[in-house]
Amino acid sequence: MERVTPRTLSGFMELLPAKQVQMERMMEILRESYSLYGFTPLDTPVIESAQVLLAKGGGETEKQIYRFMKGDTDLALRFDLTVPLAKYVAANYGQLTFPFKRYQIGKVYRGERSQRGRFREFYQADIDVIGDGKLDIINEAEIPSIIYRTFTKLGLTRFVIRVNNRKVLNGFFELLGLTEQSGDIMRTIDKLEKVGGDKVKQLLMEECGVEEAKADEIIRFISCPGTSADKLAFLETYRGRCETFDLGLDELNTVAGYLPAFGVKEENFAIDLTIARGLDYYTGTVYETTMTDYPEIGSVCSGGRYDNLAEYYTDKKLPGVGISIGLTRLFYVLGEQGLLSEDMVTAPADVLVIPMTEDLTFPFAAATTLREAGVRTQIYTEKKKVKQKFAYADKMGIPFAVIIGDDEAAQQMVSVKDLTSGQQELMSPAAAAEKITAEMAVRNSVTVIREK
Amino acid sequence: MERVTPRTLSGFMELLPAKQVQMERMMEILRESYSLYGFTPLDTPVIESAQVLLAKGGGETEKQIYRFMKGDTDLALRFDLTVPLAKYVAANYGQLTFPFKRYQIGKVYRGERSQRGRFREFYQADIDVIGDGKLDIINEAEIPSIIYRTFTKLGLTRFVIRVNNRKVLNGFFELLGLTEQSGDIMRTIDKLEKVGGDKVKQLLMEECGVEEAKADEIIRFISCPGTSADKLAFLETYRGRCETFDLGLDELNTVAGYLPAFGVKEENFAIDLTIARGLDYYTGTVYETTMTDYPEIGSVCSGGRYDNLAEYYTDKKLPGVGISIGLTRLFYVLGEQGLLSEDMVTAPADVLVIPMTEDLTFPFAAATTLREAGVRTQIYTEKKKVKQKFAYADKMGIPFAVIIGDDEAAQQMVSVKDLTSGQQELMSPAAAAEKITAEMAVRNSVTVIREK
Repeated sequence: MERVTPRTLSGFMELLPAKQVQMERMMEILRESYSLYGFTPLDTPVIESAQVLLAKGGGETEKQIYRFMKGDTDLALRFDLTVPLAKYVAANYGQLTFPFKRYQIGKVYRGERSQRGRFREFYQADIDVIGDGKLDIINEAEIPSIIYRTFTKLGLTRFVIRVNNRKVLNGFFELLGLTEQSGDIMRTIDKLEKVGGDKVKQLLMEECGVEEAKADEIIRFISCPGTSADKLAFLETYRGRCETFDLGLDELNTVAGYLPAFGVKEENFAIDLTIARGLDYYTGTVYETTMTDYPEIGSVCSGGRYDNLAEYYTDKKLPGVGISIGLTRLFYVLGEQGLLSEDMVTAPADVLVIPMTEDLTFPFAAATTLREAGVRTQIYTEKKKVKQKFAYADKMGIPFAVIIGDDEAAQQMVSVKDLTSGQQELMSPAAAAEKITAEMAVRNSVTVIREK
Repeated sequence: MERVTPRTLSGFMELLPAKQVQMERMMEILRESYSLYGFTPLDTPVIESAQVLLAKGGGETEKQIYRFMKGDTDLALRFDLTVPLAKYVAANYGQLTFPFKRYQIGKVYRGERSQRGRFREFYQADIDVIGDGKLDIINEAEIPSIIYRTFTKLGLTRFVIRVNNRKVLNGFFELLGLTEQSGDIMRTIDKLEKVGGDKVKQLLMEECGVEEAKADEIIRFISCPGTSADKLAFLETYRGRCETFDLGLDELNTVAGYLPAFGVKEENFAIDLTIARGLDYYTGTVYETTMTDYPEIGSVCSGGRYDNLAEYYTDKKLPGVGISIGLTRLFYVLGEQGLLSEDMVTAPADVLVIPMTEDLTFPFAAATTLREAGVRTQIYTEKKKVKQKFAYADKMGIPFAVIIGDDEAAQQMVSVKDLTSGQQELMSPAAAAEKITAEMAVRNSVTVIREK
């Protein structure tokens, strides 16, 4: 038979079992965390009509998209989860209750140039709150709490949720008489961290047509040093001169003010006036989340407030606020940095039942008892030497073995062996289930991310 | 602005929130159930190289496939989870430990003609055990236990796991001197339930070239009546005449014999000699699962033993056994038959916190307490009348409200209202968390499927 070399396309993540278990744990924590805040899960097709998906059209997106004909239908693979959400909300408007809070964890597709750490198929994990006409600022204030809880549960402590408000920036640009250029200025200052102040100043002057004095003032403004409280105090000095600015400042005060009640630690939050987010789409609070020891990774969770989710599909005004985690990239980066815990149990089973009896009735009944108690149980029945059976458990990292020979079977008992310590004990299957459950609870309390 | 009508392609399932929660629950139960048996989760790309995906090539598959060029790369969307598994195991052979047990729940794509209840994008939920060279019969014997536990957990009681063995059928055909036609005969008798005995007899004669007497004998054989024990006894009468047959009968005895130890109820299992499965691929035990009251739905969980998973990719012999649930179709059919429980809580939150205070610090702190205790909590802060806030909870089906006015806030207490009974009680946020957790445990004990 002629054989085809089995291979996976480059830019497509496909993990070995232990790694996949870590990835699954991350997804599980995201689901749990989003559910705690009352977000409902959603699932939309990977394939959409190209006309629908590209309603907004334009630029980079269209070049990267996977688009093809099937029969005479023009199809495309989704490149984010926001456009499908907009479609969903517009199409189901009458059947949804607002504010509509949903999360979606799903694969998206971008045919980027292949390079290390860049993926063409990757998971995004998004949450959004969509209002019908209006949406209260409190929804923006709650977002840092969700980010905080999610990353804390994953095992991170050294991260900062950086927050700004586009109204504050827009108001400030208005004060400088730069309203018309505000979109360009926003996209330019968004590059500050990457290219530095001097380059931003140059770009502001050359590409946005800002005079030197004003460019200096913009850079001074966004670079304002100090704590979040210092920055809020600094912003107060501008109050009363521009309605948009004042509104933005009120919003920023609200977001920062409720953090303690939401249980967010001060060290994990910072007002950062340099955060602009490139997209014109955002209109209020904007968020970026960075890992303190790995600034080069950039933001691992970003988003913001927008006023019009679905203007390409409906004349309903649908304001919202949302954040997105690029899960595949985050997982890749964590792995590269050696931050995925090696202590996490990644074995597919808590226990390997090893029958040494001819008749397997009792070993299988014991396995059934273990499973009914929630213990993940494999039974090893391949015809191999005893040593090889233990080698299998060892290679898989299975924490316990339950050994059943004729002696044990005669007493309806099992020998439970802790494969880490080597200790072995005779007990009933029910007692074994209890013991293993208790020990696994301890071992599973390890977080998936472990900081160095 | 010119608007595009927001629509989802036909043949693509996209659920409203409450339905999606039911679907998620089903997936969660599958994941839990497969994990209990020691299967590890796997995730492979939706897009593969067309050359790799179509290594086997042939027939219907190739016509239905979504295949397209991106740049000069010939790509295709996976149409099942078995081919990607074969690729994965062949590509990662050296890094896997055998027997390799994996589950995968993922979307697959087939461009079928659009019709009601047919999907072009649908979830399959597969488990497979892959051996390296050999694989013990016990792996086949364990499968009914997995099916049993999964469907029982979903809430079904009236289902039958129907089992046969291809070696028994092949051995019997050998006895009749029909070895050469056995594949064709297999595919023909697989239609028995659909077209009836007379038609099968006719097809056996006309299309498989079987003489009338032998066609009658085949139909008499597969139609053997009685219990599983009766059928095993009937098969014993053929023993000693054909090695393949005897081996198959031994295997069937093993599979049936261990069911009680695996906790499978007798009424949920039946040996059924008419089960052939169309594919030549299968070589030993084959499985179909039918819902007793809805035979017209056909099998909802099928599979079998095969000898060569990845022969298109490797010269390693990789025997295995696997089953697959067509999850999207199953969910659709259950919905059509009204079998999805209406008692299941599908609200995105267990409790809606309704603050009536100016300062929101205490309400948010109370929400944080609830969330830290694992209570799914939404906070309603839109500027609406009190009546509308309760109407929101009602529309969403949220079971509890936590109401916090100035009186409550002054005492650091909350009013917990059971929105089903209307009863209201004043208590601390911690007590509220405990009460709601306990009540939700009861409400969440409802299964997702409810038989009529």
